[in-house]
Amino acid sequence: MEAQFKLLLQEWREEIHARLRHLVDEQEPSLLYEPIQYVLEGGGKRIRPVLLLLACRAVSGSVKKAWEAAIAIELLHNFTLVHDDIMDDDDTRRGRLTVHKKWAPDVAILAGDGLLALSYRILFRTHSDRFHDIANIFNEGVITVCEGQALDLAFESQETVSPDEYLEMIKKKTAGLLNISARIGAIIGGGSEDEVAAMGKFADNLGCAFQIQDDLLDITSDEQTLGKTFGSDVQQKKQTYLVIHALSHADSAGRVRLAEILSDSNTGEIEIREVRALFQKAGSLDAAKAAVSQFLASAQSNLDTLRKTPERSALFELVSYISTRNA
Amino acid sequence: MEAQFKLLLQEWREEIHARLRHLVDEQEPSLLYEPIQYVLEGGGKRIRPVLLLLACRAVSGSVKKAWEAAIAIELLHNFTLVHDDIMDDDDTRRGRLTVHKKWAPDVAILAGDGLLALSYRILFRTHSDRFHDIANIFNEGVITVCEGQALDLAFESQETVSPDEYLEMIKKKTAGLLNISARIGAIIGGGSEDEVAAMGKFADNLGCAFQIQDDLLDITSDEQTLGKTFGSDVQQKKQTYLVIHALSHADSAGRVRLAEILSDSNTGEIEIREVRALFQKAGSLDAAKAAVSQFLASAQSNLDTLRKTPERSALFELVSYISTRNA
Repeated sequence: MEAQFKLLLQEWREEIHARLRHLVDEQEPSLLYEPIQYVLEGGGKRIRPVLLLLACRAVSGSVKKAWEAAIAIELLHNFTLVHDDIMDDDDTRRGRLTVHKKWAPDVAILAGDGLLALSYRILFRTHSDRFHDIANIFNEGVITVCEGQALDLAFESQETVSPDEYLEMIKKKTAGLLNISARIGAIIGGGSEDEVAAMGKFADNLGCAFQIQDDLLDITSDEQTLGKTFGSDVQQKKQTYLVIHALSHADSAGRVRLAEILSDSNTGEIEIREVRALFQKAGSLDAAKAAVSQFLASAQSNLDTLRKTPERSALFELVSYISTRNA
Repeated sequence: MEAQFKLLLQEWREEIHARLRHLVDEQEPSLLYEPIQYVLEGGGKRIRPVLLLLACRAVSGSVKKAWEAAIAIELLHNFTLVHDDIMDDDDTRRGRLTVHKKWAPDVAILAGDGLLALSYRILFRTHSDRFHDIANIFNEGVITVCEGQALDLAFESQETVSPDEYLEMIKKKTAGLLNISARIGAIIGGGSEDEVAAMGKFADNLGCAFQIQDDLLDITSDEQTLGKTFGSDVQQKKQTYLVIHALSHADSAGRVRLAEILSDSNTGEIEIREVRALFQKAGSLDAAKAAVSQFLASAQSNLDTLRKTPERSALFELVSYISTRNA
């Protein structure tokens, strides 16, 4: 199964890539479409469109009617990346310069806006008697992601963030698009209300696991594997799962030092490595790994309501794919 | 008629304002919804929703079904203002600080994204058997506006801009939303294809007149009347109708001096007044006024295909309203 699943994923990814590759080919004005083309050529894991297609098949639907929505969701995801990169002032993404670094912030704002508008254009090509529902869910996903990003931004100037606040943020910011991917896929596939709801919960849990894993990778992985700046969360004073855990579990010297580093405007590699050691000592890395496992276990149990199909197995595989990813 | 028209406009504006005022009342997270609320409380001329409602009535439709689309178009317009203000780095808008100045650019990017998403949410509440068409036209409008903004941005680093390039830009950037307002209004009102097309052309001409008038007001009006920075186009090295005209109609000393001021990074009030005098001498102010009149005359002739109704007269009034506005 695993080899078969990887092959299917690979096939779908190639199709997604091909469709994205030619979406805005040589369109004018170039100041809008070149940065968009650059983003769409940048690759990525395509988790969201793959989840949408799998959800469609898991309820016995044909992916043929789901391709537009799948591409739309990937465009929507890329809109969030381009605008988030400006806000986080990240230099690199997927091993390449971010749009606002390669061009300018203005161009990146506009490219993000364009990606969002294009995502609706493609979504609206979906043929479904539930078109209105699909459009609404898609749009609520956009709003949810904006809310999640606002929470994330607010955390940067908030002294303490509770675990619950953190979970609300990642459920919106990271799980938001996975949730609508899964539900829209299930709707296009003709799933029942129960199936659509189960897919949504599955995606929420998957998304939370994904984000905590991301928090972990940012500090445990190196820049080359990651394709983006190592330790950027620490540099940006992000309230990650690790920070929140360490601030209440490290010894008092550790807490003071962590707060110190997080309030210092100049954080280099030395401090990032120090923070990593501090997380290790406070048990925060282990706690994060345990949280990832727990969310993935919940995600798996959400799938119990689905019929036993090869696609349900494939969704299980998606879970284990996320738990073993390193970038 | 004029008094009656003004009363109707006033009534509609109050309704639009009331609906916008309570749209995101005290919603969380505040970092997203407070700036949005601030923008929506900021007032404005509400030209686009008014046009949409008038277009609906001009084809004998009832505005009852058009309110959601009218509010959506105003949200969409405000999205463009918030993002444009970041790109232009304008300090004030409608007499108040712009969002990125009052908060920060990051917050303004997000508020703009949120406004755009909210605009779709409200649009999707429209009850119409042509919902799919309306959604498509609305979305194409978003893309058109992004293209127009990209052209405008590109002009800033382009040595010369032709009159045709300028007209393409304003047709997309300024007329784009007026165009979809008029067409969506006519569709919701049950207009024929000819009527919808005529309304679109009317709006295009109205939009071009509106933008050239805007170019004029930026340099001829004072800051208090305008509610935004006086001479901001000159400060931002914008290729306006006036600049393009003067660069090919001023005497050679004037051209050299204009190019000099437009390439200087430090432009103050003295230079702006100098540019105004230069425009005057080159006949650019008169040429702009003539262009405005011409576009308004075309707009009026576009209305000839419509039945003679009080609403058609009201659209004529909209034309004269724009030609006499001073802010």
